[in-house]
Amino acid sequence: MAGTDKTRAAELASGSAPAVILVAPQLGENIGMVARAMLNCGLLDLRLVRPRDGWPNPAAESTASGALAVIEGARVYERLADAVAGLNRVYATTARARGMVKPVLTPRAAAQELRAAEDRGEETGLLFGPERSGLDNDDLTFADGLVSVPLNPAFSSLNLAQAVLLLGYEWRMAQDETPERELAAGDSHPATKSELNNFLSRLEQNLDETGFFHPVEKRYIMVRNLRNLFQRAEATEQELRTLHGVISALRGAKLGKGTKD
Amino acid sequence: MAGTDKTRAAELASGSAPAVILVAPQLGENIGMVARAMLNCGLLDLRLVRPRDGWPNPAAESTASGALAVIEGARVYERLADAVAGLNRVYATTARARGMVKPVLTPRAAAQELRAAEDRGEETGLLFGPERSGLDNDDLTFADGLVSVPLNPAFSSLNLAQAVLLLGYEWRMAQDETPERELAAGDSHPATKSELNNFLSRLEQNLDETGFFHPVEKRYIMVRNLRNLFQRAEATEQELRTLHGVISALRGAKLGKGTKD
Repeated sequence: MAGTDKTRAAELASGSAPAVILVAPQLGENIGMVARAMLNCGLLDLRLVRPRDGWPNPAAESTASGALAVIEGARVYERLADAVAGLNRVYATTARARGMVKPVLTPRAAAQELRAAEDRGEETGLLFGPERSGLDNDDLTFADGLVSVPLNPAFSSLNLAQAVLLLGYEWRMAQDETPERELAAGDSHPATKSELNNFLSRLEQNLDETGFFHPVEKRYIMVRNLRNLFQRAEATEQELRTLHGVISALRGAKLGKGTKD
Repeated sequence: MAGTDKTRAAELASGSAPAVILVAPQLGENIGMVARAMLNCGLLDLRLVRPRDGWPNPAAESTASGALAVIEGARVYERLADAVAGLNRVYATTARARGMVKPVLTPRAAAQELRAAEDRGEETGLLFGPERSGLDNDDLTFADGLVSVPLNPAFSSLNLAQAVLLLGYEWRMAQDETPERELAAGDSHPATKSELNNFLSRLEQNLDETGFFHPVEKRYIMVRNLRNLFQRAEATEQELRTLHGVISALRGAKLGKGTKD
């Protein structure tokens, strides 16, 4: 909750985001979970068309898990036409509609089209239907496209908050700059090649001294395999210092038992 | 529920999928919702390490919404080491861990690495921690990489089933072949260019007859704009027939009012 106001300010500053429009939602609990999923994704504009149990709804506050800014900012409409009136581009989530001639998009493709529209200065929205029945064909006529989530075809029903989460997540990912893969090295730093090489040279010298490399004609390939293994481990400078200690300890332990070579 | 058995057979036939390993899950309700999210994504192998309230747990069955095949197939372990024993590659979901030197991946990148491993014949797994505390650093030592979902940094906490859904969804999308965008045309088919051209020619002829194009030097650009509009609409053959009827009706209505030109 502490972060909510900061978030609102930061997200609003960073440009437009889709409104989430729930048509005839039934359970307040679900509206609350939608609010939480929205804030997870940085979406703040919640619009409710004819919520069954009226509004405000205490059940929504209890499941919003701190996403109260979304709940408190929600606007209520009698007609879907009014809820989407100011928007330029709207996508509706639905199981494939029968008898509607309409583009059907994956969440990822819809997210890219939303971002492109927002970059042009357009206002956008995502439309979700009632829990049981989903959006009807009359509702869908307001949409520029339908979004269908390609899940397990034999078990594809999502609850409302999960559908909002997947669409919001894809919208967020469509402009996310998190590196796909990076090494978290904490307080240390990835070792330099010379630090790694110092360790490997010392390891090999110690293995030479203990007679590890035999037969000697295999030394070349055994060294290469060890070097590849430690290279692949992406060791930090701190981890290499630990490994130097491991060598000392193992040699010391051996000497301590009275073996000398 | 009807589709569950079919699903299991189909998914198992199509190759390996990650096991979902829940470490010390607390609420049975959450385990049930995890099972539902798993089956949504075609994941079937659920492993529970020290579930707080024992197993089986009726609360899990009640929230699984028909994903009983997952619940009934769940295996229980005392130690995480045993739960992951047969796996080759494991990713752990976590808020960024402190003091762990470990690759951190987006869900999308982790999904691609999982698929690549499965294509090589490896067994894979996804690790999730207890609801309140998440995985501890000792648990994380079993993982090849950490997965962090790049959500709203000021409000990023997901419930367990939502985390499973996002990871499962990305895993599914990593091999999904659904077209990004396609026109659902129902029983009709997208019009051929000659069908569209016939309609446009008739429209233009009727507009010529009614004196619509004036001043006449603007006719060229007005025709071009109309052609672009109807081209963009991606009309089906059936919709063009409707539009032909619209022209007839509008001309007829005008004639019906006694106007003739």
